[in-house]
Amino acid sequence: MAFRILKLTPNFARMMSTNATTVGFVGLGQMGNRMATNLINKGYKLNVYDVSSDACDAMKTKGAKVFGNTRELAKSSEFVITMLPNNDIVTQTYEEMIKDGVNSNTLFVDSSTVDPNVSKYVQKIVKAAGASFVDAPVSGGVMGAQNATLTFMVGGTTDEYNKVKGFLEGMGRKITHCGTTGMGEAAKICNNMMLAISMIGTAETMNLAIRMGLDPKVFNEIINSSTGRSWASEVNNPVPGLNPTAPPSDNYNGGFSAALITKDLGLASSVATETNSPIPLGALSHHIYRMMIAKGLGNKDFAVIYDFIKNNSK
Amino acid sequence: MAFRILKLTPNFARMMSTNATTVGFVGLGQMGNRMATNLINKGYKLNVYDVSSDACDAMKTKGAKVFGNTRELAKSSEFVITMLPNNDIVTQTYEEMIKDGVNSNTLFVDSSTVDPNVSKYVQKIVKAAGASFVDAPVSGGVMGAQNATLTFMVGGTTDEYNKVKGFLEGMGRKITHCGTTGMGEAAKICNNMMLAISMIGTAETMNLAIRMGLDPKVFNEIINSSTGRSWASEVNNPVPGLNPTAPPSDNYNGGFSAALITKDLGLASSVATETNSPIPLGALSHHIYRMMIAKGLGNKDFAVIYDFIKNNSK
Amino acid sequence: MAFRILKLTPNFARMMSTNATTVGFVGLGQMGNRMATNLINKGYKLNVYDVSSDACDAMKTKGAKVFGNTRELAKSSEFVITMLPNNDIVTQTYEEMIKDGVNSNTLFVDSSTVDPNVSKYVQKIVKAAGASFVDAPVSGGVMGAQNATLTFMVGGTTDEYNKVKGFLEGMGRKITHCGTTGMGEAAKICNNMMLAISMIGTAETMNLAIRMGLDPKVFNEIINSSTGRSWASEVNNPVPGLNPTAPPSDNYNGGFSAALITKDLGLASSVATETNSPIPLGALSHHIYRMMIAKGLGNKDFAVIYDFIKNNSK
Amino acid sequence: MAFRILKLTPNFARMMSTNATTVGFVGLGQMGNRMATNLINKGYKLNVYDVSSDACDAMKTKGAKVFGNTRELAKSSEFVITMLPNNDIVTQTYEEMIKDGVNSNTLFVDSSTVDPNVSKYVQKIVKAAGASFVDAPVSGGVMGAQNATLTFMVGGTTDEYNKVKGFLEGMGRKITHCGTTGMGEAAKICNNMMLAISMIGTAETMNLAIRMGLDPKVFNEIINSSTGRSWASEVNNPVPGLNPTAPPSDNYNGGFSAALITKDLGLASSVATETNSPIPLGALSHHIYRMMIAKGLGNKDFAVIYDFIKNNSK
Repeated sequence: MAFRILKLTPNFARMMSTNATTVGFVGLGQMGNRMATNLINKGYKLNVYDVSSDACDAMKTKGAKVFGNTRELAKSSEFVITMLPNNDIVTQTYEEMIKDGVNSNTLFVDSSTVDPNVSKYVQKIVKAAGASFVDAPVSGGVMGAQNATLTFMVGGTTDEYNKVKGFLEGMGRKITHCGTTGMGEAAKICNNMMLAISMIGTAETMNLAIRMGLDPKVFNEIINSSTGRSWASEVNNPVPGLNPTAPPSDNYNGGFSAALITKDLGLASSVATETNSPIPLGALSHHIYRMMIAKGLGNKDFAVIYDFIKNNSK
Repeated sequence: MAFRILKLTPNFARMMSTNATTVGFVGLGQMGNRMATNLINKGYKLNVYDVSSDACDAMKTKGAKVFGNTRELAKSSEFVITMLPNNDIVTQTYEEMIKDGVNSNTLFVDSSTVDPNVSKYVQKIVKAAGASFVDAPVSGGVMGAQNATLTFMVGGTTDEYNKVKGFLEGMGRKITHCGTTGMGEAAKICNNMMLAISMIGTAETMNLAIRMGLDPKVFNEIINSSTGRSWASEVNNPVPGLNPTAPPSDNYNGGFSAALITKDLGLASSVATETNSPIPLGALSHHIYRMMIAKGLGNKDFAVIYDFIKNNSK
Repeated sequence: MAFRILKLTPNFARMMSTNATTVGFVGLGQMGNRMATNLINKGYKLNVYDVSSDACDAMKTKGAKVFGNTRELAKSSEFVITMLPNNDIVTQTYEEMIKDGVNSNTLFVDSSTVDPNVSKYVQKIVKAAGASFVDAPVSGGVMGAQNATLTFMVGGTTDEYNKVKGFLEGMGRKITHCGTTGMGEAAKICNNMMLAISMIGTAETMNLAIRMGLDPKVFNEIINSSTGRSWASEVNNPVPGLNPTAPPSDNYNGGFSAALITKDLGLASSVATETNSPIPLGALSHHIYRMMIAKGLGNKDFAVIYDFIKNNSK
Repeated sequence: MAFRILKLTPNFARMMSTNATTVGFVGLGQMGNRMATNLINKGYKLNVYDVSSDACDAMKTKGAKVFGNTRELAKSSEFVITMLPNNDIVTQTYEEMIKDGVNSNTLFVDSSTVDPNVSKYVQKIVKAAGASFVDAPVSGGVMGAQNATLTFMVGGTTDEYNKVKGFLEGMGRKITHCGTTGMGEAAKICNNMMLAISMIGTAETMNLAIRMGLDPKVFNEIINSSTGRSWASEVNNPVPGLNPTAPPSDNYNGGFSAALITKDLGLASSVATETNSPIPLGALSHHIYRMMIAKGLGNKDFAVIYDFIKNNSK
């Protein structure tokens, strides 16, 4: 009998766990569908919505309940998590979702990467409607979403953080409280700006070292045990072969796409403009990535900047 | 009796160790005098030369033998180490030192930070004169020199590397073989270019994070456990107070001076020009440091760039 | 008799010209009050509004009629011109001004410098309300406003351009048709981005030339008759003394403020992000100006960048 | 009879003009052979030297006397002009040319583009040998060399300037006295750094304008009559078609090669490092051109940077 229980379909498991928490999931793209699948696998009851009916159908076969609009979905969910592509879609989705009321005990979580001002606006309208909202963007990419090892950066009150922590652990390994509303987004944007700077810096440093006659492997060991080290040099070194399982060693396939880091640099640029903050290296990194992307490398891992910078000729 | 031996003056120790290796030390500045002192303390016989007679006198009281010129000094030494300020002085010093011949078994070591082409030129003339030469610039700063914890980056043959390793361990903790002549300098210059990029990037990232409302301590923990981390964010974070014993927490006193990293960026710029290598962030970092130095901050730790970049006003 | 007519006060001129065109002017700041004054002096009937009652009172003494809100002002005017500080205020002002209807023959002109998307939004809501709108930002600064020598860059249909041309000539010397809605703003933002690049470039070039030993006057003549010339080197050279009547020769007072060009660079950054356009020098110029402004030079002519870049020390 | 004189071959003209000035020409490349030909056509007696015997032969057929080494050439010439590729070749050529003495009345002119320190060194050794030297680099490119419309930037005493002026007018239209030794080179390097900044700035501005919807022709007229104008926007606008006879309208063929402006930016970088001068936009321009050249566009007119920066895709 126990043997048969292991073979229960998700749908049946769902029906069995009558006390399970119900989560609404809006946005079932590359990241979202993997995150949603993890929640189902951990026993949550899933309500889902996406503009693509294919994406919805795929989740339905895993046991999720598909909704035709976000308003109904939200009213049937204790948590609602949104995973959407940009500022405008996040804003519109929330305006639509709450427009004819919300359950006051629903906690909305936006895991999209957007401008903190969008988070602040959404928090305001959700709160005015009577419910709660936190921003909780992620790092870790598609692999992190697949393996439930994402990091969530949460912006909200301590109380809200405590409420979402357990639920987010269904999709991630590390749940960080970054501060009040918008501070999750702020932390992610700032971290990724620094990441872009480190990556381009490492690419030009490695290229210069090689051009001067240093062996890339030898030099990489030196820099990694010295003051020039960073995540980019240690974990995802842009020179193919130095980190054998990282994207640069697989022709820059997989990983964190150049298009996405360029988007994040655009957000950094916006908030820097708004706060009058000088980001000379951040801004230059943004435009170097733009030049690179204009040459058609947007879908490669962002370490492909090494290939763009290096010079083979005299 | 053993007790009294511990209290022997260096001078007396020197007299006792009749079989000690003799080292010639040229250049007794902030770094050189500390390195030379460590060699004496470890039992080496020291021959010294400096343009400053005060610097020579100070070493004499510690037991060193002072020479009036480098030619005689070199002829009486098994190793000669030079620690000098720039390309021109290194070139002139070696031309002068070897002009009327050398002992073929003397091994010359240049620990100055200079253009690898200078190292190659000096190696050529030393070799033509019949002796050996390696470049071996250091990292670790005045504290590393004081505590004999420097890192030496050695450029030369494996044989030469093996010969100098033990001797350099009298002044440092880590002796790395970087490749052939000039590769020690190449490694140092590349590492320090990346370091400058990381430091400016960290400074603008921290400032932006704070301007957006993040708590610096909270954000620093996030970045240090994420992909934005680097030596600059972890060990010498430019925001005062985050690394309590680092220079930024002491008004940027001590540490690695902005003037010195600007010099290293100048060397990086030269070798990048020579090898036609693009270093967009490296070059921009060079000129940001130059703008900063023109405002009079050259003697502060290079993390003072945070103070230059941050904006207090609206 | 003719002699006496020349001495007519503006107020009297206004009463005389019973068939004069009525213009509504919203925003009576440094630029606006001078532009409005020129219109009065040329015989237009002026309706004015500003949040500052002092600014309104000053125009009243010159013969303008003061309104307490923009809705009434717009309904009593054939043309309405707005001269306001930023995106948000322009958006809010138009939403308020047209909310209870407009005269279909009123033509609205926004001379503020804002994002072309704001112009497009405003044009849409004005058109939906039944009237017409063009964007028409200016160049020429406070002196151009004072002397009615501004350049207007107009975005709208040819028909609309022809309608506003004569009226704008009351305040400017050159009225350019740049294209459809938003293209006036686009032209201004692009021109000013290039201007910032030219100015910083000229400042660093002049400083380098002087540091190398060139006489600034001699070198300026060379560059101005060669391929390095630009408006910045010819008309407003940032080295004091080269253009005796320009702001750099008066301690950088007057002229085009660094704060304003920084604002324009922020708009360029936004539209570049939106269109995925690489602007490496434009973005760097933005952040150089930001660093400079953080040091307190925002109110000086933007050529003061020379003072920020030059190095006096060794 | 007069008719026939007009048809005299250069060779015959040379024989006839027994009192003609003799000029030694060293370096008969793309620029040099055209400049030398102009001198012959104007009646000068030409002594020539080049490492390529083909280049020498070509000049011989035009009436020049070919020398096998520069020492003899210099001794038989009243003026010696050198047109060589780089610092090292200029230095070596002069060391070789004067090593067994010079005529004290020979005036040496270096028209190569090199570091002003090279000019200062060469002037010193030529003077020590008893003769005179000026640096006189040119602008105007291959077309200017062909048509004798070059600009010469002369560094030397007023007396020396007056002596070379007439002779240089045989190859150029404008002969400028820039200051003492090296100042001709300094002026050229600074002008060309500004030119590179203007060109990249214009390229990114034009691309942004077009991406925003502006018509390139309309916008170009606006910028050229406004504060964003420069030589790059007016004479060699990088957008194909705007200057119909300029290289951008001929697929960037001809003109001033990207490789050469990159070389000049390298010289600017060196002198900026030496004088501690901040050149943030100049340095970034250098590295943008380097990235472009690494992609194989070095032989195109430097305006091809537009093609590198523009984005066609979303």
